[in-house]
Amino acid sequence: MTDDKVSAAENEQINFGVLDCLLGYKLRRAQMVFFDSFSAACSDLGISPGLFGVLVVVKENPGLTQTAVAKALGNDRSAMVAVVDRLESMELIERRPSKKDRRSYALYMTPHGNTFFNGLLERVRAHEDELCQYLESGEKKQLLDMLDRFPR
Amino acid sequence: MTDDKVSAAENEQINFGVLDCLLGYKLRRAQMVFFDSFSAACSDLGISPGLFGVLVVVKENPGLTQTAVAKALGNDRSAMVAVVDRLESMELIERRPSKKDRRSYALYMTPHGNTFFNGLLERVRAHEDELCQYLESGEKKQLLDMLDRFPR
Repeated sequence: MTDDKVSAAENEQINFGVLDCLLGYKLRRAQMVFFDSFSAACSDLGISPGLFGVLVVVKENPGLTQTAVAKALGNDRSAMVAVVDRLESMELIERRPSKKDRRSYALYMTPHGNTFFNGLLERVRAHEDELCQYLESGEKKQLLDMLDRFPR
Repeated sequence: MTDDKVSAAENEQINFGVLDCLLGYKLRRAQMVFFDSFSAACSDLGISPGLFGVLVVVKENPGLTQTAVAKALGNDRSAMVAVVDRLESMELIERRPSKKDRRSYALYMTPHGNTFFNGLLERVRAHEDELCQYLESGEKKQLLDMLDRFPR
């Protein structure tokens, strides 16, 4: 018997105890499903969910500082440097010195970034739609509303 | 003006574009809220959400192999070794050679682990209850049901 067979057999009868009624756990599991599905849909483009979030915020808010983008997304400020480096090396966004704050950079989409984003967005929407099949009509809206209520 | 003041002012007028209607993004944000709240409630005990999940599965399924616990929780099998090392060093669980599979270890709670778990569970429940204040009556059940429907 391989490890996988052992695990599959064991998995069927696993008791998850209190985890079955903990939102923190269920949110984490659902988030992992969405993360894996996003990766399957977009990793060949070199885009993770985290990079996608930054692209959206930069696109919608041209000129925002790197610090402000990190804060908006709840990202670690130091990790943000690597994320922006990566998006810049892909020529999707560019840093320009901020006019408001000399210690910071303002971020802008490049023309290539804008074109790339349109194709990417189609993939992201398709991945979301695929997972939303598991919800009934109206439930996505309800779910988004409930998730929005937890204070950041 | 400090960086924080700049960001707070900018944050109020940030446009999140498509992120506002993407479940993947909202799940991630909600999961971060739960993670931070869990950490605030339990980090002085040295317990993260990941370690807690392992404790629950080991407690409810004594003798399960390390591989099966990782699989049940969707954890990376190699990262699991460090998690079990940590829980063992805290004397909460113990590894014994598996009877079914000589290449693997079976995991068991220690008596100290069982006592420790009871106190920990109280903290976890209090943290969950605090966040569930933001839901109306019946909504937690609805939310758990929807989250459970996404296929792992």
